[in-house]
Amino acid sequence: MTVVRNTEKRDGVVRQRVKKCFKNVCSAKSVKARVPIIQWLPKYNITLLIQDIIAGITVGLTAIPQGIAYAVVAGLPPEYGLYAGLMGGFVYLFFGSCKDITVGPTAIMAAMTAKYVSGYSADYAVLAAFLSGWVILAMGVMNLGFLVEFISMPVISGFTTAAALQIASAQLISLFGLNGPSGNYFAESVLNFLKNIYSFNIRDSVLGIVTIIILLGLKRLGDGCCRNDKLSKQIRWFVSLGRNAVVVIIGIIVAYIIKTVTGNESLKLIGEIGSGLPKIQLPPFRTVVGNETHNFSDMVQNLGPQSIILPLVAILELVAIAKAFAGGAPINATQEMIALGLCNIIGSFALSMPTTGSFTRTALNNASGVQTPAGGIFTALLIISALSLLTSTFYYIPKASLAGLIITAMFSMIDYKILGRLWKTSKKELILLITTICICLSLGLEYGIVAGVVIDALLLLFSSARPPIIVSTLSATKGNVIVITLPECLNYCAADHLRREILKASVDAESDSLIIVDGMNLQHMDTSVASNLMSVIKDVEIKCVQILFLNFDVSLKEMCTIINSNHSNKFLSADKSNIEDIIAVSVQNTV
Amino acid sequence: MTVVRNTEKRDGVVRQRVKKCFKNVCSAKSVKARVPIIQWLPKYNITLLIQDIIAGITVGLTAIPQGIAYAVVAGLPPEYGLYAGLMGGFVYLFFGSCKDITVGPTAIMAAMTAKYVSGYSADYAVLAAFLSGWVILAMGVMNLGFLVEFISMPVISGFTTAAALQIASAQLISLFGLNGPSGNYFAESVLNFLKNIYSFNIRDSVLGIVTIIILLGLKRLGDGCCRNDKLSKQIRWFVSLGRNAVVVIIGIIVAYIIKTVTGNESLKLIGEIGSGLPKIQLPPFRTVVGNETHNFSDMVQNLGPQSIILPLVAILELVAIAKAFAGGAPINATQEMIALGLCNIIGSFALSMPTTGSFTRTALNNASGVQTPAGGIFTALLIISALSLLTSTFYYIPKASLAGLIITAMFSMIDYKILGRLWKTSKKELILLITTICICLSLGLEYGIVAGVVIDALLLLFSSARPPIIVSTLSATKGNVIVITLPECLNYCAADHLRREILKASVDAESDSLIIVDGMNLQHMDTSVASNLMSVIKDVEIKCVQILFLNFDVSLKEMCTIINSNHSNKFLSADKSNIEDIIAVSVQNTV
Repeated sequence: MTVVRNTEKRDGVVRQRVKKCFKNVCSAKSVKARVPIIQWLPKYNITLLIQDIIAGITVGLTAIPQGIAYAVVAGLPPEYGLYAGLMGGFVYLFFGSCKDITVGPTAIMAAMTAKYVSGYSADYAVLAAFLSGWVILAMGVMNLGFLVEFISMPVISGFTTAAALQIASAQLISLFGLNGPSGNYFAESVLNFLKNIYSFNIRDSVLGIVTIIILLGLKRLGDGCCRNDKLSKQIRWFVSLGRNAVVVIIGIIVAYIIKTVTGNESLKLIGEIGSGLPKIQLPPFRTVVGNETHNFSDMVQNLGPQSIILPLVAILELVAIAKAFAGGAPINATQEMIALGLCNIIGSFALSMPTTGSFTRTALNNASGVQTPAGGIFTALLIISALSLLTSTFYYIPKASLAGLIITAMFSMIDYKILGRLWKTSKKELILLITTICICLSLGLEYGIVAGVVIDALLLLFSSARPPIIVSTLSATKGNVIVITLPECLNYCAADHLRREILKASVDAESDSLIIVDGMNLQHMDTSVASNLMSVIKDVEIKCVQILFLNFDVSLKEMCTIINSNHSNKFLSADKSNIEDIIAVSVQNTV
Repeated sequence: MTVVRNTEKRDGVVRQRVKKCFKNVCSAKSVKARVPIIQWLPKYNITLLIQDIIAGITVGLTAIPQGIAYAVVAGLPPEYGLYAGLMGGFVYLFFGSCKDITVGPTAIMAAMTAKYVSGYSADYAVLAAFLSGWVILAMGVMNLGFLVEFISMPVISGFTTAAALQIASAQLISLFGLNGPSGNYFAESVLNFLKNIYSFNIRDSVLGIVTIIILLGLKRLGDGCCRNDKLSKQIRWFVSLGRNAVVVIIGIIVAYIIKTVTGNESLKLIGEIGSGLPKIQLPPFRTVVGNETHNFSDMVQNLGPQSIILPLVAILELVAIAKAFAGGAPINATQEMIALGLCNIIGSFALSMPTTGSFTRTALNNASGVQTPAGGIFTALLIISALSLLTSTFYYIPKASLAGLIITAMFSMIDYKILGRLWKTSKKELILLITTICICLSLGLEYGIVAGVVIDALLLLFSSARPPIIVSTLSATKGNVIVITLPECLNYCAADHLRREILKASVDAESDSLIIVDGMNLQHMDTSVASNLMSVIKDVEIKCVQILFLNFDVSLKEMCTIINSNHSNKFLSADKSNIEDIIAVSVQNTV
């Protein structure tokens, strides 16, 4: 009867929990949390609007050249980069919880899809966005965002540096106007550059290098200026922020002049750009590569581990940016991941490449004083007008200008100082950083980041296997007392180490000694450790050395006594004041 | 000039080190350590000899039936099991450092090679021994034996249980004299058993079940008896230890009688056994399977991950046994691995299957009072005489007797009590145990142990990501003081967790509060954690909450200040007596 009641009660509890859970999901509060636009739109006013317009347009001036540039990095037609910026902004408007974040194409996302675009077709980039979107969304819903916490700073830094080197090296061909393909890997790109260096073009090279110099100069120009300064400084600030647009416009003008003057296209240009808005259609679940038709399963197979690594990197970039711009507020990582997932899924219906939060444009958005995600609308409107009106102008964008723009952006992605810092603080982490860079550059970015994470995890496991166990010897009237102080946490992999330390102490000890295993700090151990603690008693006592376990937590003592109940008398509790008495008594007992 | 000198000096140091290392390797002491027979042989005398003879012969009486049985488990001709016992004993004699350990075929090693023997040919078992030998030797020389420490007790227990179930289930066919093949996996074996149950043979079944009953009875018989008891008890003890030989002899007699009485072989018998010693030859670097010739690289490819997992399991078994019989002395794991590696390599030249330390026979050796590894000679001599004289007798060993013997041995390999123990101490480890068993039984032993190790490692990583960070609030005259006590060790994966905890505390705090991050216990952190600690300062101070770092170790403080030198004034040292003053001063400063 009681059993039935218990079951009923439990059923009731379960039903209530399910109800509560369901209620939580459907409550107005949780809908508001999931669709943050509901929270801020009612409070929206003209002042906020003006600020958002200014910020949105400022960001747009960077989003257009960057979008085209990153499409080039991915090996896609330039308009794909603009499509990606467009859809990202619109979707994030509804679901984003962080006003500054700008979702769109980024250099790393582009570099990670480049291999598939060059190897197969542009459809792979769109499918990658679609799949990544679902993975990101799923990880958001399942609260798996914490997985990026297992990527340590040296690995992130190594990965970013390698990505920057790979992206920059792939642009060397365009920067100097060489013939031939660039390459999917750093070494391949450098090799292709060296192989084709004979086809060096003076006009492209000069334009490319001048672009870099102008960009660095304009960046300097804005130092110390901000949005609220006096007019001259405000102009400097604005020109500095819009420097990407400035160099592209200069490039277009130069290319146009050269063409009208010489009559031929002696600069390498971007060329035809698909005009107008992208057609809304299903993502490409099949594609034609050469004469072969790849169906969905072929495509997923070809993307391989990238289908998991690309979303993880996207989350990593987004979380890093959110952390930097949250201003100390805790980040709603789940909501950000849901928003990013939707950006990619919905984007893939409009030919978007994989997107994530862009550091440059988010920083720009913040600096331009954006107030709500509505800023994204104005960025998107600017991109739409560019797609509608400016594609014939974009035809004249010199590849060398874009290459200069990309290479300059990559300079700032590399954290040179970390080498010196890690040299001083931790050689182990320095080696990890360098290993990550080497693997990223030689085998590919995705393998590098995976290798870094695995090496880090192995190092952590190895350090867990050798926790600090402090052995100290006290002299007592009769025999010695050896105190073995346990650390906070003992895991299975430390079980043998602990056993060896205790045995070593017992071998060094004279007979009639007492070994005290001090568990005062110990908060966690597992069955492997407890078994070894119980089995070592016999081994120690063979040598006429007594062993006692001092100040073990009740639950830990219970774990040991369940394994071997014969030894429950070995456990003692004592504070520091009466430990001397216990030692005296124990030593006497041994005699 | 200095540079040259430095290099010279360094060269000198390196040369000295290499010399020292070389000297160490070649010194008499290290040769003695590597070939332990040199240590004990000069002290050898007639008393030791007699004890070794008694133990060696006792072990031999078990080694012969077990050898045949485990060859059957592996699906090999029965003589392979005897060859394996032979060579193991001889090689361990020279290189073994633990007097009790008996190297030979074991049930688990046999079960792990069975798949390759049934799928390809017997040559695969010999090649597996050869390769395993080299891997074990290499791991011994490189001191990689610690890798087995990463296999936790629940995983080992689950693996052993699954192996026992798999081996026992494969013998059901023979136990009941059914037709048809057994199976490489538990499910396959059970299925084959059920499928063929119609071919049930009453004579085999009775013999098999009687064998099991006799074995259990004889095991009971020896309870409470030992080698030094009075004669009647001594006989009981000896018969109990030799019970495997007893049931095989009974089986042979029964089979012989039935054959002479009925004139036909109504019991399923082992049949022809290759007579005489194995021919010494190169291990099979190529083999013929059906019509195909497999060369060395095909064979290695077919063995696949087994080439690593088999040696690891061999080391695991050996180390577990050494621990149990070392009697509290630290184990020379390196030497044991070198000895085991050589046993396998040299054994493979004499058609040995993979070998390792056998728990049953080692326990028997110990119980029989063996004094040196010389006991192995007499075991080997007994095996040699069996191979020379008794193969025609072994013809009559009934398969049902062997099946009974194997199944009974498997009963004792399963640790039933661990289920209850883990239920009480750690549900997490219980789930791990059950998962390991399920994967072992469904996918194969090697996948099960790998899955167990990986799950364990992941659990450890996740627990490292959430170390215990204790947050407590003190009330002060002006604002609150929140003390965040850090644990002993903070790894990169805990960096974000720590940041969140500090931010949460700062959000809950009123403004003008003070957060004290107490690093008194902190002994280790890495750059990721230090970066987060430094970056969180800004986020906290935005909310007019002050933050201080108390009692950080000098090296940890330095790590933080290298990352951001602006915050070095945030680090304070204080003992408990003046902490109140510091709080008072800090709070006043905040005002």
